[in-house]
Amino acid sequence: MNLTDPMETKSKVGTDFAMQPIGFVRSPFQETSQVPRGLGAKHTKEGILEIRPELEAGLTDIEGFSHLFVIWVFDRSEGHRLMGQPPSDDRPHGVFATRSPFRPNPLGLTVVELVRREGNRLHVRGLDMLDGTPILDIKPYLSSISMEKLRRGWLAEAEARAKGSEPKS
Amino acid sequence: MNLTDPMETKSKVGTDFAMQPIGFVRSPFQETSQVPRGLGAKHTKEGILEIRPELEAGLTDIEGFSHLFVIWVFDRSEGHRLMGQPPSDDRPHGVFATRSPFRPNPLGLTVVELVRREGNRLHVRGLDMLDGTPILDIKPYLSSISMEKLRRGWLAEAEARAKGSEPKS
Repeated sequence: MNLTDPMETKSKVGTDFAMQPIGFVRSPFQETSQVPRGLGAKHTKEGILEIRPELEAGLTDIEGFSHLFVIWVFDRSEGHRLMGQPPSDDRPHGVFATRSPFRPNPLGLTVVELVRREGNRLHVRGLDMLDGTPILDIKPYLSSISMEKLRRGWLAEAEARAKGSEPKS
Repeated sequence: MNLTDPMETKSKVGTDFAMQPIGFVRSPFQETSQVPRGLGAKHTKEGILEIRPELEAGLTDIEGFSHLFVIWVFDRSEGHRLMGQPPSDDRPHGVFATRSPFRPNPLGLTVVELVRREGNRLHVRGLDMLDGTPILDIKPYLSSISMEKLRRGWLAEAEARAKGSEPKS
């Protein structure tokens, strides 16, 4: 592999990438405490991804997809913590091994089910964002990792402990 | 639902969210033309997600996960196009219904398989990013949408056309 010299790209660390909302989430959740969290939390709430009208053409043909990735901003979280204890476990884990809102870049990622589109408004199911959350991007969900191939680390262990059984090794 | 007044949040559209790389991709791909694209493209290349040393604690326990989401920046794409023709089809689609690099916010999203971790370096399989690509976030891949529940819109239709058969309705 002919890799770029690490020192050369290191100077890019100081680079800021400025992102602007493409729209906002209309959600029934006004406060974090209302969002289901922890083991077995189900996200079934419906709401709307309201995209800026001038970007509506970018939604063309999105109706054909059952599920979408939404990349959004934890705009009500301040600062980051490299280690934290998620609601689904009684032990701390690294921020990149969790969905903690206190991330170096406060980005959220949610898979939602697309119920229908009305112009620049996407009616979706499975929200876990607060009302007014800024949306940065939407992408089609194209394929899945099969559950047989998936290992889920501390989360699987926490689930096993919660059931009172030993985690599989 | 007690939704926020749309006009109130509309003023947030002017808000920039500044993101800084948490690290960089070490990939065998130096140019876009080297990245497999289009129908049936397989991403099996290995490379490294090199995280800034001061953020290494944030990777604690990530080894337990077989797959990760990587959110990154298309740092060599300029501008955006609301409609575009992806390499997997002969028809144009809206940017939010494709993985086009020319997006209002130039964010990429890739699912990689975690092969192993060495300190602040994650060895991964399934890269589709160029060498030196800035990484904004890493999250554990926790669950999948089952293939039976997934509809893949124009992509499924393009695949069906490529096979010379009619798309399923």
